Amino acid sequence: MNTETTRSLAEPQFDRSVMRWIMQRIGNPRISIRLWNGDEFPITNERPVACMEIRERRAIFEMLRSPSLGFGESYSQGLIEIHGDLLAFANEVTAVLANKREDGYYGPKLRSLLYAMNRNSLARSKQNVYHHYDLGNDFYKLWLDERLVYTCAYYDTPTATLAEAQVAKLDHVCRKLRLQPGQKVIEAGCGWGALAMHMAEHYGVEVIAYNRSKEQVAFARERAGARNLERLVTFVEDDYRRINERCDAFVSVGMLEHVGLANFKGLGALIKRSLKPDGIGLIHTIGRSFPNKMDPWIVKHIFPGGHAPSLAEMMSIFEPQKISILDVENLRLHYARTCEAWLRNFNAVADQVADMYSEEFVRMWRLYLAGSSAGFESGTLQLYQVVFAPRGNNKVPWTRDHLYAEGPRTH
Amino acid sequence: MNTETTRSLAEPQFDRSVMRWIMQRIGNPRISIRLWNGDEFPITNERPVACMEIRERRAIFEMLRSPSLGFGESYSQGLIEIHGDLLAFANEVTAVLANKREDGYYGPKLRSLLYAMNRNSLARSKQNVYHHYDLGNDFYKLWLDERLVYTCAYYDTPTATLAEAQVAKLDHVCRKLRLQPGQKVIEAGCGWGALAMHMAEHYGVEVIAYNRSKEQVAFARERAGARNLERLVTFVEDDYRRINERCDAFVSVGMLEHVGLANFKGLGALIKRSLKPDGIGLIHTIGRSFPNKMDPWIVKHIFPGGHAPSLAEMMSIFEPQKISILDVENLRLHYARTCEAWLRNFNAVADQVADMYSEEFVRMWRLYLAGSSAGFESGTLQLYQVVFAPRGNNKVPWTRDHLYAEGPRTH
Repeated sequence: MNTETTRSLAEPQFDRSVMRWIMQRIGNPRISIRLWNGDEFPITNERPVACMEIRERRAIFEMLRSPSLGFGESYSQGLIEIHGDLLAFANEVTAVLANKREDGYYGPKLRSLLYAMNRNSLARSKQNVYHHYDLGNDFYKLWLDERLVYTCAYYDTPTATLAEAQVAKLDHVCRKLRLQPGQKVIEAGCGWGALAMHMAEHYGVEVIAYNRSKEQVAFARERAGARNLERLVTFVEDDYRRINERCDAFVSVGMLEHVGLANFKGLGALIKRSLKPDGIGLIHTIGRSFPNKMDPWIVKHIFPGGHAPSLAEMMSIFEPQKISILDVENLRLHYARTCEAWLRNFNAVADQVADMYSEEFVRMWRLYLAGSSAGFESGTLQLYQVVFAPRGNNKVPWTRDHLYAEGPRTH
Repeated sequence: MNTETTRSLAEPQFDRSVMRWIMQRIGNPRISIRLWNGDEFPITNERPVACMEIRERRAIFEMLRSPSLGFGESYSQGLIEIHGDLLAFANEVTAVLANKREDGYYGPKLRSLLYAMNRNSLARSKQNVYHHYDLGNDFYKLWLDERLVYTCAYYDTPTATLAEAQVAKLDHVCRKLRLQPGQKVIEAGCGWGALAMHMAEHYGVEVIAYNRSKEQVAFARERAGARNLERLVTFVEDDYRRINERCDAFVSVGMLEHVGLANFKGLGALIKRSLKPDGIGLIHTIGRSFPNKMDPWIVKHIFPGGHAPSLAEMMSIFEPQKISILDVENLRLHYARTCEAWLRNFNAVADQVADMYSEEFVRMWRLYLAGSSAGFESGTLQLYQVVFAPRGNNKVPWTRDHLYAEGPRTH
């Protein structure tokens, strides 16, 4: 027997076995695997939702080395291709991973893949380290709604568009805070200022909004000027930890994910000293149904110090200050739909993004948005809106009727 | 100088000082103190909300020894009398205690007074140990609503009566569970069966309701028979831990307080194995805004193994099972009003209760109901309704609109 022939026959068998082994550890998703030589095989007997093509053999070794980084980077670099619907693929893999018992040696490692998909795998390779929020307004303008709201929307009707659902979210938050004209509101982490402006314009409140990003603050000020809201809204280019005033309402949407568990107690103390005794507050954040660490690489390169907390972990903000929880709402399905809408918008401008950055960047973002949607769809990720008040505040609403009263949310 | 005269002058001065010292440690409530000799003095410069009469000197020493037991027992035995509105007195003392920083040596001890007032002071003395739930249906029929609902009501309108608010609560719970005809519901701790019957009658579900109390179960079965609900509702006279079936909805109203922290994890495991993957559950419980131990005497004599948990503590039920929290609502102000309504009803039948038990029993219950109301009013106690589902359940409602839809809650 010719040695050359033996090798070329044996190798695909070996690669198949390794891929099957990896897929088994993930929980046997209903996908098919196609190798670089065209060899294709399904993982289960069921109809595959998508095909994962391994274009170069080294992608297998990358995944063996680290499922999280290996898959994310290989996909971004085009060593792996997903044929079919990327979102369907992400949903399938995330679902089987979520249901798999994380036992034994491989459990913790496998969790990393989840993270890579959920909170992205913006490649480790140095040429691709664009910091998430430093990508610039122009990038986000391409695929967010026109108000540039980069947090979970609220689809209060089944037919709502992304833009409508974002306004509905802004209004849902305002209603939960029971804003009254003349009140003073502090916003910690205001993004491009959509909520601050909505509160001022539709509820007549004074807003002091904090954000560290120079470019976002510049954009927000310009928009506020164009809408004649400068008198009511002040954008402060500073860290939320410098907040040093009293308010009737404290609100933070999509910032807690970046605060980090170690700073929760400090945030609670800040809220306690900022909020008047009859004040009310709201934190809107990505969370989890149980405590779980984020992928170390994600924490290091994408969300420094970041953490998606469980509710018990979130309570370390409130309980040491004896702050009372009034209302918790979980909007995870809304975030799955939001990410899906973002992905659709993103795909429509992919060529433009590739010209601005690179093809690899486009692939990373696709995976990040699809993986995030899948995380919320599967329940690996949650979205909590938590309403709270100083313990003795008896001006809190008796019921939640006011959240569901008639009248358009979009004013 | 006559020694006799010196003593009779000096003693009241000493007692005044001791009482002022005790009141200072409590946080200086706006009350006045009247001693057995008629000597009366206010604690603050503000108008007293009530007068606390110390009828016998030993009550002071009882309070010095243990604020919790000393006050509760002395009041019950008539050594202390409150002139004016007992509820106003309880609210004032609870409020100043809640706001007082629990620092230094006396802090932990003072907390006990709070407990004695909030979750009652059914006197330690042996002749008065009537176990809370063993008092018999006839006792509770005297002052609860006609459905015998012994948990927080839901005052969905400002003018609702206690009976209306109890029905509104039953319906609020049903709506949160999104009950559909033909579903199977497990209820852990069903009291006199009001919720089980409401679910079956108005939502067409099959209910299996657990309760350890023979007398309550007998009552519930009789009522269910009278309403032709035997086919749909099964009352099981057993501990909730024996639950051993699958259900579409799991509900427990007012039982968790008695479960004890040590059993939370077991309860979570029970819920996990009982609830179908697309099921939904609700726990309604007294809680706290921060973890705090119950008074050891209360735990020993009134609520063995009992604990009013903080939300973080409650999460130890859900997070180890990766159960997802969908909704938390805090109804503490509703419970303050409920206890107030109970107190009003109780006062109207006080003579009858005194004949059935004793004057001391009446005084204990008055203090218990007034103190509980004050606990909820001050925010020392909270009332949480927590809705949850297995993590991957995507049939959960998108919004909470259905809770606030038109139509009478009372059917």
